[in-house]
Amino acid sequence: MDFTSDQHLDDGVLERRFDLDGIPGILWTPEHTPTPAPLILLGHPGGLDRMYPRLVGRALHSAADGYAAATIELPGAGERPRTEAVEQARADLQRAIRAGEPVPGEVVDRLVLPLVEVAVPEWRAALDALLALPGIGGPVGFSGGIVSIAVRLALVEPRIAAALLFAGSFVPDAILDDARRVTVPLLMLLQWDDEGNDRQMALDLFDALGSKEKTLHANTGGHTGVPGFEGDDAGRFFRRHLR
Amino acid sequence: MDFTSDQHLDDGVLERRFDLDGIPGILWTPEHTPTPAPLILLGHPGGLDRMYPRLVGRALHSAADGYAAATIELPGAGERPRTEAVEQARADLQRAIRAGEPVPGEVVDRLVLPLVEVAVPEWRAALDALLALPGIGGPVGFSGGIVSIAVRLALVEPRIAAALLFAGSFVPDAILDDARRVTVPLLMLLQWDDEGNDRQMALDLFDALGSKEKTLHANTGGHTGVPGFEGDDAGRFFRRHLR
Repeated sequence: MDFTSDQHLDDGVLERRFDLDGIPGILWTPEHTPTPAPLILLGHPGGLDRMYPRLVGRALHSAADGYAAATIELPGAGERPRTEAVEQARADLQRAIRAGEPVPGEVVDRLVLPLVEVAVPEWRAALDALLALPGIGGPVGFSGGIVSIAVRLALVEPRIAAALLFAGSFVPDAILDDARRVTVPLLMLLQWDDEGNDRQMALDLFDALGSKEKTLHANTGGHTGVPGFEGDDAGRFFRRHLR
Repeated sequence: MDFTSDQHLDDGVLERRFDLDGIPGILWTPEHTPTPAPLILLGHPGGLDRMYPRLVGRALHSAADGYAAATIELPGAGERPRTEAVEQARADLQRAIRAGEPVPGEVVDRLVLPLVEVAVPEWRAALDALLALPGIGGPVGFSGGIVSIAVRLALVEPRIAAALLFAGSFVPDAILDDARRVTVPLLMLLQWDDEGNDRQMALDLFDALGSKEKTLHANTGGHTGVPGFEGDDAGRFFRRHLR
């Protein structure tokens, strides 16, 4: 992990950009936290620069609660090279949605599974590097982003102690199978009127998740209309599980 | 409204039992609140004595937030006279459930609608009497109990500023129609594994509700297994809307 730049933000937060074997990432740490800070990994749909304003908002929220926060670019997003097969699957998915047709499971598989299979080891490698830094300890929470990545990571990475899932993308059957074996505490957010999201698929995923403690928060509004009070609820969720 | 007894509880809360034209009720008021307190009406499934331990817990929680809280007995419950037709409907419903059969809509109608039609005017009469007392002001919240009563009350009673609904009972089609016209902010709790509750019916009710601000909190566990943190979430919901 090589730090490529740093700047001091308001509120006593240090933002450092890094490069992890060619993957760009950002780390935010509260500067005045006495003990090693728990870490929240910030998921996103891909495109760090485009997502930066929302990511930094979430990071400042986390830092105010005493957490470090970090994120890395997704495979095939931002400056990272595209994969032809995945781009073809994305085009097939968008064509089906535009035509008002049901999206075939094999298209969802072709789009999401390669992403999960590359991204999850990358997030785990980032976790290795981040937890080796002074001032960052465990436990680790994962928050938001592509829900299939979050589910697989929550299943295979024992350092994830709690996860906030954002229902907002198509979920392959293989990930539903993973979901049944997840055991960490979960909070799932669902935007009830999300135009680009299949509500029943989100409810099926929530139902499948194996965790004894799982909570669904569904709110009126579209994909980007999550009410502000859910940010506070997310903070309380992590406070219950990252201490 | 005649007060029939009073006692000072711990935490500076005065509990008064009352009689409102033959309907027993209980009022809890924080004793050290300077301004007129907002009021939360505590719904329940019927049987004040049986429900007392849980009701007083909710009332003390409300009082700690500076609210008065009050409840009245339901028609046909506790010491109040039973209605033969309703008891027959209840028996029919339980027979269908025991037999593993779908519950016919006309049975739900015969059980729930007479209850709603008697109870809602009673709660409104209680509200008249309670808001006339010194030390109790508006706005008014409604919390829990039979969800069909809560929906009808939220629709017809303009003094209800926010309602917490507990999905846990069968809902007549007429109440689904009411739900579409409800506009006050809502928080609905759903126990995901509630044995005696139809999950799809609860989701259909949430979907039908017309309010622009509505939030669903679903948690793992059975009917009585609502996690403790939902009490705090309920407090924050009312704090957003009863000031």
